[in-house]
Amino acid sequence: MKGFDFEEERIKQEIAKQDAKRVLIQLPEGLKPEAPRLAAIVEKAGALPIISADPCYGACDIAAGEAERLGVDLIVHFGHAQMLKHSQVPTVYIEARATITIDNAIEQAIPLLSKWSKIGLATTVQHIQALDQVREILVRVGKTVVVGDAGRIYYAGQVTGCDYSNVKSVTNDAEAFLFVGGGRFHALGIALATSKPTVIADPYEEKAYLISAEADKVIKQRWAGIEEAGKAKIFGILIGLKPGQKHLDEALRIKEAVEKSGKTACLFAIREVVPEALLEFPTVDAYVNTACPRISLEAPSKFSKPVLTVNEFKLVSGESSWENLLKKGLFEN
Amino acid sequence: MKGFDFEEERIKQEIAKQDAKRVLIQLPEGLKPEAPRLAAIVEKAGALPIISADPCYGACDIAAGEAERLGVDLIVHFGHAQMLKHSQVPTVYIEARATITIDNAIEQAIPLLSKWSKIGLATTVQHIQALDQVREILVRVGKTVVVGDAGRIYYAGQVTGCDYSNVKSVTNDAEAFLFVGGGRFHALGIALATSKPTVIADPYEEKAYLISAEADKVIKQRWAGIEEAGKAKIFGILIGLKPGQKHLDEALRIKEAVEKSGKTACLFAIREVVPEALLEFPTVDAYVNTACPRISLEAPSKFSKPVLTVNEFKLVSGESSWENLLKKGLFEN
Repeated sequence: MKGFDFEEERIKQEIAKQDAKRVLIQLPEGLKPEAPRLAAIVEKAGALPIISADPCYGACDIAAGEAERLGVDLIVHFGHAQMLKHSQVPTVYIEARATITIDNAIEQAIPLLSKWSKIGLATTVQHIQALDQVREILVRVGKTVVVGDAGRIYYAGQVTGCDYSNVKSVTNDAEAFLFVGGGRFHALGIALATSKPTVIADPYEEKAYLISAEADKVIKQRWAGIEEAGKAKIFGILIGLKPGQKHLDEALRIKEAVEKSGKTACLFAIREVVPEALLEFPTVDAYVNTACPRISLEAPSKFSKPVLTVNEFKLVSGESSWENLLKKGLFEN
Repeated sequence: MKGFDFEEERIKQEIAKQDAKRVLIQLPEGLKPEAPRLAAIVEKAGALPIISADPCYGACDIAAGEAERLGVDLIVHFGHAQMLKHSQVPTVYIEARATITIDNAIEQAIPLLSKWSKIGLATTVQHIQALDQVREILVRVGKTVVVGDAGRIYYAGQVTGCDYSNVKSVTNDAEAFLFVGGGRFHALGIALATSKPTVIADPYEEKAYLISAEADKVIKQRWAGIEEAGKAKIFGILIGLKPGQKHLDEALRIKEAVEKSGKTACLFAIREVVPEALLEFPTVDAYVNTACPRISLEAPSKFSKPVLTVNEFKLVSGESSWENLLKKGLFEN
């Protein structure tokens, strides 16, 4: 796979440094095709490689339990910056920085930003090294550029699927945001978190476009889902089983709030929050997801019942208002 | 859900006996709709109920790791007889015996068995209590009935998704088999394991039918898959992560055999062996599944690449012949 730096030399060095005999290779979905090639590198470095074939969508999802069960002494996790401070098994993070050029996509984004002069800049870890260059291009065409750093995630200007603290920290200083990277997922997160116009500059497709209409659609759909959940009699409260997604205390708190209002609450432990899993429980009217807050925030929703975020549930329980929710964000801590 | 005995009284007793404070409820897919009702019973008995929402297809798949992570002190596992001797967390097995009448389905099966006089009888744990009654009906119409007991699983005459040792132990004494239970899955397993005509008496649908044509189709498809795997250059070897599906040593042995023949082998750790997971690795030509041996044995296959059982791989490696494979069984230990 061209376009990403898999840091082959560092992998070999880490195996030697840790004297690892058995290595678990974990990649997010888009990078998984590289796994057999990376396994060969690990084997050449003298360790037995095992590839994790289960879904992986973030650094919240380190396969530490799996590694323990397999007697693995080193995890090499690709595609994400470190998020969890502790892991039972030593873990090396290979961020898989993109080596692709971004100029073309940025050039196409500039006309879409013409209405605004103060631009907030954001990207995923893959393109974090390109932010200075993007800033220079924007300054050259007369923009003021802000890059947020709330200190919660690894890099200034970085966003992850569920953490938009960096863009939120500069929301008041930016009239619009420019996201550099592939796909709609992260840019949609920025638009939802900031309620500001958000442009994607996609270096893989070499094109730029505005994501705001999609964000409006999601917000309308969330409103409808919250309304529907308000009529629910039986709530399912989802507890994530992945290392960075387990919020048992929060789930217990929500169970109590549901029961206080005279309704029924069931706790569900779940690894992959997929529509088919929830279809097995037809008597449950609505869910509150304490695991990954991004999972149900797509339009149109793939779920047949409302799956609320923890923040959204606060509207149902009367702890918050729609205005506060939009201000705080549909899904952020 | 009518038709099954969920042993509500025993659940309460076990919670009291173990002084359980937090209980994980685990059910296979067909019984999951009962979960909220069972959770209410657990809660009334004084424990906090958590429902496992992840897929569960057998007693090989006890959610013990999940229970540990959630601080659970008792697992109540429904729908299967005990299979694993040890679990890190105390586990109660509620077999969910069927309370439905079987007479009608058996009456319909009798004409389908007219060609044979020696009938092997088998069922799942749900209907194990009905075997005596079925035997009587068959004897009354002049059949000789055999019920196998190889001593490997819980009950004489019982089959599970991956264990047909009981029917195999009486293959030579039976001209045909009668399976009592719902769905085609277990009866197909009997037909594949014994190569004998197999009739299903399905008490839920109140009908009976012969499964042999489907078994023939599967065997033809398996042959084609083995042939295709013979041309593979890169093999993926699947290691199951579920408690009763982890066969790491077997996977290592297969890796060695693949490499001895000058081909490449990659180890994959996987929880749910689903087609989408394997689609992520386009360079792998064929898989050997050391996890659940039944997963790929459906016709038509949902997998885009051959997914061989351990026994089937022995044909590719030259350790066995097609005749031996059919005799030993496509998928049995």
